[in-house]
Amino acid sequence: MSYQEILFERTGHDVTIILNRPSRLNAWTGTMEAELRSAVQAADADPSVRAIIVTGAGRGFCAGADMDVLDAASKDTLDLGKTLPQERGGGRSGESALDVNYTKTFSYLLRTKKPIIAAINGPIAGIGLCLVLFCDFRFMADTARLTTAFARRGLIAEHGMSWMLPRLIGPMNALDLMFSARIVEAAEAERLGLVQVLPAEGFLDAVKLKASEQVSLSSPRSIGVMKRQVYDSLLQSLGEAWDVADAEMKKSLQSEDFKEGVAHFLEKRPPAFTGK
Amino acid sequence: MSYQEILFERTGHDVTIILNRPSRLNAWTGTMEAELRSAVQAADADPSVRAIIVTGAGRGFCAGADMDVLDAASKDTLDLGKTLPQERGGGRSGESALDVNYTKTFSYLLRTKKPIIAAINGPIAGIGLCLVLFCDFRFMADTARLTTAFARRGLIAEHGMSWMLPRLIGPMNALDLMFSARIVEAAEAERLGLVQVLPAEGFLDAVKLKASEQVSLSSPRSIGVMKRQVYDSLLQSLGEAWDVADAEMKKSLQSEDFKEGVAHFLEKRPPAFTGK
Amino acid sequence: MSYQEILFERTGHDVTIILNRPSRLNAWTGTMEAELRSAVQAADADPSVRAIIVTGAGRGFCAGADMDVLDAASKDTLDLGKTLPQERGGGRSGESALDVNYTKTFSYLLRTKKPIIAAINGPIAGIGLCLVLFCDFRFMADTARLTTAFARRGLIAEHGMSWMLPRLIGPMNALDLMFSARIVEAAEAERLGLVQVLPAEGFLDAVKLKASEQVSLSSPRSIGVMKRQVYDSLLQSLGEAWDVADAEMKKSLQSEDFKEGVAHFLEKRPPAFTGK
Repeated sequence: MSYQEILFERTGHDVTIILNRPSRLNAWTGTMEAELRSAVQAADADPSVRAIIVTGAGRGFCAGADMDVLDAASKDTLDLGKTLPQERGGGRSGESALDVNYTKTFSYLLRTKKPIIAAINGPIAGIGLCLVLFCDFRFMADTARLTTAFARRGLIAEHGMSWMLPRLIGPMNALDLMFSARIVEAAEAERLGLVQVLPAEGFLDAVKLKASEQVSLSSPRSIGVMKRQVYDSLLQSLGEAWDVADAEMKKSLQSEDFKEGVAHFLEKRPPAFTGK
Repeated sequence: MSYQEILFERTGHDVTIILNRPSRLNAWTGTMEAELRSAVQAADADPSVRAIIVTGAGRGFCAGADMDVLDAASKDTLDLGKTLPQERGGGRSGESALDVNYTKTFSYLLRTKKPIIAAINGPIAGIGLCLVLFCDFRFMADTARLTTAFARRGLIAEHGMSWMLPRLIGPMNALDLMFSARIVEAAEAERLGLVQVLPAEGFLDAVKLKASEQVSLSSPRSIGVMKRQVYDSLLQSLGEAWDVADAEMKKSLQSEDFKEGVAHFLEKRPPAFTGK
Repeated sequence: MSYQEILFERTGHDVTIILNRPSRLNAWTGTMEAELRSAVQAADADPSVRAIIVTGAGRGFCAGADMDVLDAASKDTLDLGKTLPQERGGGRSGESALDVNYTKTFSYLLRTKKPIIAAINGPIAGIGLCLVLFCDFRFMADTARLTTAFARRGLIAEHGMSWMLPRLIGPMNALDLMFSARIVEAAEAERLGLVQVLPAEGFLDAVKLKASEQVSLSSPRSIGVMKRQVYDSLLQSLGEAWDVADAEMKKSLQSEDFKEGVAHFLEKRPPAFTGK
């Protein structure tokens, strides 16, 4: 598959998706949005991929919406709604009443079976920040800075930010970042619990190592089920989540990965999970 | 408008509401409750007001319910229910199915269009603490202390504390503060994520500066919409919140503040938002 | 009452329940599960008990499911579903539509009237960690370590972990601990907000002191009502929780503990609450 505004790199068991408009600090476009979705779906469908990393080309991660696009929209010469991909309906049909939550601009990221890791290499703003809120993990270079940006553009909490940011850093801190749209240094973002900071020197390699450490001893099947459990649980009552866990536990006891999970432990050797 | 138990001060774009029974450490009364609501509504309706600060006169913030009132109630000589204002129904009708959540003793504070900042200048207890949980931001003088108080009076988690406190500091810490009703120093309250501490010396001026920094470069229209989005999101599914965000984004693209938000950025000058 | 796999100790106003298979690091069994439930219910029903502590015998807290059981299950020689107690239905009937949430393997712990304190004296894994997530407080010896374990066994987020862990430490950290199943030192568990660390030397005595400090000046009636309010609030809208608080406030004003709560304060003496 060929992409215009992203790069798709495969190394070992990881896929790295690189937002690739470096001359514009990877400012967001409808093309980039469609390509990201396509690339994530391809990586998720490939059984040999263990983790998906999203980062930016050049010195930035994503500067937010392209200012040329916003400028045209502000002068009524552009219908912004038409420049962006349409929301898709329903996910795979018949799966769950919760599916509708996972069809939005970025919320489909929550529904993949693989961990998605944001590697925030440089400045990140607006819709770029929305994107990483819907990744499972956020690593940030110690030189990078972030801003919600919207309130300084006369915009609002776009694309699920109002829902996810308070669940990650609490309502008080979320309102502070949204109202002020101030620039936040990496160290403060870490104190807020939003990211984990790594040195800018060797940043992407360090993120890849973290991703590898996270998945290398774990069953891919377990990770896929757990990811769905955790995000669904945010939308479920305790009883509903428990019933799902009980049903998934029974299924896991029939899986190859469970047999291997017990066997490698008793045989004191590294696991060789198949993901089945 | 003339008030008996609060002061209403206007400085620049801010309103400061001062609980004003200093000889009783601003202990709570039905009159104070009604006057606070009236003052907040007046400040929220005034387009020139950017932020609302709530603080206490004298050396305390609010000592909780007036002990004379509790004493009379405990001796069956007073019907406490009758001394407090009645809950009002429904907010502005026809707006949203969520409106009913925002009609309670303090939850109407979540529904204003302006940031509300608690400036906890001194001791705060019981119902005083409930009040500040429903402000958007909490600053606390480094000499101040807080307590939930209720469990030592034989009372319960009043006025939404059981709902909001766990969402601000997590269930374990919330239960600790409620069960023990112990006295918490400002530094610990900050570690818990409940407040941001500022020096007692020059406290109110420092809070006003923080309030100003938070709103001065942002669209008032954006702030009003975002505040509603964040609190509603705590009551919505992800999909519902996303649909609201998409609809609000379209409306924002038609707003004067969006045009100004783009224009001041491209023209490299400070914004001149109208809030429209 | 006589137990096989736990110990039940009464000291002062506290009950300490000790998981007691020290030769197996207190690995979990169906017998232990049934006995824990029985012991907790007995302690909760005894009006003279103020706090319930759960800890492990010997050098561990709970190593998770017994590996012999998992091994047999993985070889299809054991139906694991039959080795565990059946879920019980509905709690005390007619109480609340939320009751169904509190009938599960560990969620009944949320419905007791007494604080339940986990004293994590040593290694804790898998289902042992699920257990302590449903205790109100978690203290951890500075030498102890924890792991979710499941993903390395090919299992999933069992027994409500997917619901409770994100609400205690946020979705990002919860996913990290679940996906990687890595070993977490006590100090990191404290940084995540999951536990409070105490020295291994004198650990259980220190936990008992903490438990005593938490309840000694508070009304048992207040604590019981507040515990129910806090957990129910995680399942309720703000308006629903507020209506419950208003109704509970009225009931508390008629209670003996309220009269005592005011009287001891005005008389400047320690409280003598009856819990009524």
